[in-house]
Amino acid sequence: MSVELESQSWEILEEYIIHDRSNEIIKFFESSQPAETAHFIAHLDEELREKLIVLLDPEKAADLLHNIPDEQAADIIEKIPAQEAAAIIDQLPVDEQVDILSDVKSEGAEAILDAMSPKDASVTRQIMKYSEGTAGSLMTLEYLAYTEHTTCGDILNDIQTNQERYSDFEVQYAYIISDSNRLIGVLRMRDLILAKKNTLVKSLMIINPLHVNVNTSLDELIHIFDEHNYIGIPVTDKLNRLVGVVRRSHVLEASNQRAELSSLRRSGITQGEEFRSMPFRQRAFRRLSWLSINIILNVIAASVIALYQDTLSAVIALAVFLPIISDMSGCSGNQSVAVSIRELTLGLIKPFEFFRVIRKELGVGILNGIILGFLLGMVAFIWKNNLYLGLVIGGALATNTIVAVCLGSTIPLLLKSLKIDPALASSPMLTTITDMCGFFFALYFATLALEFLT
Amino acid sequence: MSVELESQSWEILEEYIIHDRSNEIIKFFESSQPAETAHFIAHLDEELREKLIVLLDPEKAADLLHNIPDEQAADIIEKIPAQEAAAIIDQLPVDEQVDILSDVKSEGAEAILDAMSPKDASVTRQIMKYSEGTAGSLMTLEYLAYTEHTTCGDILNDIQTNQERYSDFEVQYAYIISDSNRLIGVLRMRDLILAKKNTLVKSLMIINPLHVNVNTSLDELIHIFDEHNYIGIPVTDKLNRLVGVVRRSHVLEASNQRAELSSLRRSGITQGEEFRSMPFRQRAFRRLSWLSINIILNVIAASVIALYQDTLSAVIALAVFLPIISDMSGCSGNQSVAVSIRELTLGLIKPFEFFRVIRKELGVGILNGIILGFLLGMVAFIWKNNLYLGLVIGGALATNTIVAVCLGSTIPLLLKSLKIDPALASSPMLTTITDMCGFFFALYFATLALEFLT
Repeated sequence: MSVELESQSWEILEEYIIHDRSNEIIKFFESSQPAETAHFIAHLDEELREKLIVLLDPEKAADLLHNIPDEQAADIIEKIPAQEAAAIIDQLPVDEQVDILSDVKSEGAEAILDAMSPKDASVTRQIMKYSEGTAGSLMTLEYLAYTEHTTCGDILNDIQTNQERYSDFEVQYAYIISDSNRLIGVLRMRDLILAKKNTLVKSLMIINPLHVNVNTSLDELIHIFDEHNYIGIPVTDKLNRLVGVVRRSHVLEASNQRAELSSLRRSGITQGEEFRSMPFRQRAFRRLSWLSINIILNVIAASVIALYQDTLSAVIALAVFLPIISDMSGCSGNQSVAVSIRELTLGLIKPFEFFRVIRKELGVGILNGIILGFLLGMVAFIWKNNLYLGLVIGGALATNTIVAVCLGSTIPLLLKSLKIDPALASSPMLTTITDMCGFFFALYFATLALEFLT
Repeated sequence: MSVELESQSWEILEEYIIHDRSNEIIKFFESSQPAETAHFIAHLDEELREKLIVLLDPEKAADLLHNIPDEQAADIIEKIPAQEAAAIIDQLPVDEQVDILSDVKSEGAEAILDAMSPKDASVTRQIMKYSEGTAGSLMTLEYLAYTEHTTCGDILNDIQTNQERYSDFEVQYAYIISDSNRLIGVLRMRDLILAKKNTLVKSLMIINPLHVNVNTSLDELIHIFDEHNYIGIPVTDKLNRLVGVVRRSHVLEASNQRAELSSLRRSGITQGEEFRSMPFRQRAFRRLSWLSINIILNVIAASVIALYQDTLSAVIALAVFLPIISDMSGCSGNQSVAVSIRELTLGLIKPFEFFRVIRKELGVGILNGIILGFLLGMVAFIWKNNLYLGLVIGGALATNTIVAVCLGSTIPLLLKSLKIDPALASSPMLTTITDMCGFFFALYFATLALEFLT
């Protein structure tokens, strides 16, 4: 697809929306790749996006929301009248309803739910109650369930009759429930295939099947799916009643989303996803909340320099190396942060294993500290032809690298023990401390060696 | 699980290995959670890890490798004799063989393949040839395929006879091939269930089924699975012969792994995963390769300070603010980097859309630049009671914030156009330039206003 063509296309879409040509809009989306939808929408102004959604009939609008990221969909849906939003949301499967409505501001979500058909809304509300990342919030309601009195023939008939409705279901398993809805067994489709039609499912099913609770966490689900080769696992409430099925693919998607969110957080986008299609002021203020904390941390760290102004004015060359020392130690420390976060995620280390981690990290810190300190020290020595300056700068970088890897490797463990997301807070905590220490080591060593530096 | 108990457990394992008690080792792993395996292994010294694997019979050793991350498994397998490694690898399904062997150094992997049974090795070699992240490298060989002449009864019989062997297969679909192995149709299990036994599959199958090529990329696969609700999609070679099936869960896992790797890269772990169980020297040198590039970039950036030594010695307070300005602009720029990388991944922006991104980013940069510049300028003004110092510092931070968000938002697009991974190079490129600019703005503005500052 050429650049020319691409930029033409969304302008055509814009024209169609401005002139209320809903048939052309439908044709436009039908003739383009679903994966391109998000790109087209991102190009439209806020008003046109809202107009577009309202122009389409609810079913087509729902198709469109299905093809774009949830936060982008939520952003549109919360701006249009609740009545119209409800009609569109009603067309989506329950799990997508929940995904989108959870990203809508809570009053907005309530208004939409109130405008939906009470029966549908009550199911959606029920699932929205489960906290994010639990089996309850991840489960689907699209599964096959039969009571224990059913025969294989009954099931085959049911599948035949409802072929259309079941077409999106995973039908590798059917779940068998008691009259009071309690999960009592799982029936594999392959066993059903091979059975006589009048066989009772009760005699074919696997009893006491693996199941999880609505409150089972995402981490536990990842482990369970790692260990078992199932496509889906039934979810029960505290009375052991079957309430849904959590699918492997949904668990993997949730884990994916979490990884992406935490990678955004690490870069300073702290309040969920940001899209450039969001209003300018919202984006600026979301970013500022993080930057203002950072400016305070930075001022605290740099105040160490202010304490040593006399040394600094005597040896102005130090000013060139201070940012290098602080930045390099920050890099070394962030490498340790990344390895610790990864090892925590994989379960290779536990939050209490401080000393084990420091023992493993100390060697790397000492070796890399000496090599980096030697390199930077040489630069300082050659530039000013002063061996002592080289020793001060090299020594400060070496010492601070060791401090940085020890801190970097243990801060994520500490935060994890305190139930704070290590991806969010590790790096700013680390760099504030390593900046302070780096400035301190360089200026303190220089003060000690002052007579040889001037 | 208490701290006490946990640390006892792996010491018991150590004892068992030292005393060659393989039965106790097997019992030890059987009575502990599979998810804990990686944690136990991470605690063992290199020698004990290798001894452990060799002590177990190949099947048990393969179970153990199955339960730990691939890179950790590769690390162990490349250290033991090829003959023994081959016997263990042989016990794993082909896709896991490929995952582990791809992480083993190439000579080591060759030696292991040579020692495997020639038939198995040739399949594994074949799949290892496909480049990483393509359908060929992700596909599984565990699927049901029948020729077009088969009847429904034949398939049911085959499933019944081979129940054991097929137990890990996804049997929602069977693939129908011609005599020359070309993919001609897909048969849904639900259609099979409802059909008469003597029906030819040819009359039941869906013809011209959706399929991908061995070279289809991970990004394309993600899009395809996004658009279609399939569990698996057949993979064909260039002669349209069926060679494998790529499953939704494997595509999601690969996408997950890629996200994690790129989050490690962003923090300076550039050569694949690092585990603290790897040898100390290897870890130190892997990290150094990144740090040494960084030290050069840092020296280049700081050389700007050296050019303005006279200004700096006249107004020593500037030295306190230089690291703050460079760090703060780096933070603002990295926020833009994160948003651009995310939008590129989701397809919301295309690599050529420089101006659109800058237009969207400029407003945020100007607003945040003014606010942050005002804050830091106030700190400078109050500290030294000099309005001009406040203006110089505030102006430099504001200007540099605008530069940083424009650069940060476009560098990932530029790198993407050049086919360089934005996660790897965006941040160091950005911070080198914003450091230089930040130092330059502060010192240049100060030189202009020098008479009011002293």
